[in-house]
Amino acid sequence: MTEKAVSLLSGGMDSATVLAFARSMGYDVTAITFDYGQRHSKEIVSSEAICRYYGVRQKRIKIDLRQIGGSALTSEKPVPERPYQEIGQGIPETYVPSRNIIFASLAAAYAETIGSNVIFIGANSVDYSGYPDCRPEFFTSFQKALALGTKIGTERGFEIEVPLQSMSKGEIVKLAERLKVPLELTWSCYNGREKACGACDSCKLRLKGFMDAGSVDPLRYERYPPDYRDYLAKKNKK
Amino acid sequence: MTEKAVSLLSGGMDSATVLAFARSMGYDVTAITFDYGQRHSKEIVSSEAICRYYGVRQKRIKIDLRQIGGSALTSEKPVPERPYQEIGQGIPETYVPSRNIIFASLAAAYAETIGSNVIFIGANSVDYSGYPDCRPEFFTSFQKALALGTKIGTERGFEIEVPLQSMSKGEIVKLAERLKVPLELTWSCYNGREKACGACDSCKLRLKGFMDAGSVDPLRYERYPPDYRDYLAKKNKK
Repeated sequence: MTEKAVSLLSGGMDSATVLAFARSMGYDVTAITFDYGQRHSKEIVSSEAICRYYGVRQKRIKIDLRQIGGSALTSEKPVPERPYQEIGQGIPETYVPSRNIIFASLAAAYAETIGSNVIFIGANSVDYSGYPDCRPEFFTSFQKALALGTKIGTERGFEIEVPLQSMSKGEIVKLAERLKVPLELTWSCYNGREKACGACDSCKLRLKGFMDAGSVDPLRYERYPPDYRDYLAKKNKK
Repeated sequence: MTEKAVSLLSGGMDSATVLAFARSMGYDVTAITFDYGQRHSKEIVSSEAICRYYGVRQKRIKIDLRQIGGSALTSEKPVPERPYQEIGQGIPETYVPSRNIIFASLAAAYAETIGSNVIFIGANSVDYSGYPDCRPEFFTSFQKALALGTKIGTERGFEIEVPLQSMSKGEIVKLAERLKVPLELTWSCYNGREKACGACDSCKLRLKGFMDAGSVDPLRYERYPPDYRDYLAKKNKK
């Protein structure tokens, strides 16, 4: 029987790549998408499209993180716009306290009910080192807690797989392309308009990833940051 | 400035005792009560009464554990009735997968937003050893995960206080009485009727605790288990 895994799918590039990676390892994958009071539902729509594309089951879990508070991603504060250099410096304003901790707990609980002790998470500590619950040390100790604190874990152990952990955005883009992830279906922008804004931290990091990988983002943008525009112009000249 | 702590308060005897204990240690305590799709709201009403009694703030967090499934406490399965001897044998049917893991994660997230790195939990591994996320090893490793995975934890560490960890129900009753916990306001019964049923696991364990402590439960019951009836009869003869 194929081993079961759950894979956290936000609808972004990283989590879509992790879903493809888990499938490529032969797991019978169920995607888990959190409906957590995001500013916009665009991510959730993307996650559904990705599940349809791969024909995987999707479990949606509703947990309103606005109850907890403390973040620009779920509150009315404007999404910060700032240069690359400041991204990854300290803990960003968009930090949802313990979000990965909460998501991993709920994923573990659900995994247990379907007989799975494997969770895939698209966390990454290189480009966005400001989130303490994205760090390898956190996942290692949380995995240990799940091995001790769940029924299935006490019987078979528990695994938290964080395959993108030490990859740069450029490496993630390369992996996504190698796995043929439908990147045009993914959504990374913090704003939920028709096209990606091209100005928020998440858009900038994503486009920097494509530049580093030497390839072009198939997603449509309202405007490109100047360096990506220059990059495209040079690329087209060739 | 008084140090802040959060204390998980279900409305039951154990969590009420822990709240009183945290206050007795001098903490500025906020009670956290989870509205998790319990079969009945009687517990929540009790928790409110306890907070009013102590004049502490109460934060309610809504997380529907029925989405996760897998337990008699949140599903339509009948609440099991069984003799003492079977209670604590294996993992009970009322096990909500990873419930303490989920609750502790949400509590940690909330604690962080109010500047607290201390969580009190009324878990207990003596009378109810069937739940893996009630065991000391679990809390120790989870505390480590929180120290690594939260912003406040990376700065000041994180503490999960489980003062009832190794106490029997009888010892908990004694502690509650010493701390003058208003036990008549607490609710332990798995059924949500006007009086406690006296037949479910939780009622039986609670009454056994009072017998072991040599005292009398101020709560009203529909009926008493035979041994508690005998105990009361003997007590009244004296």
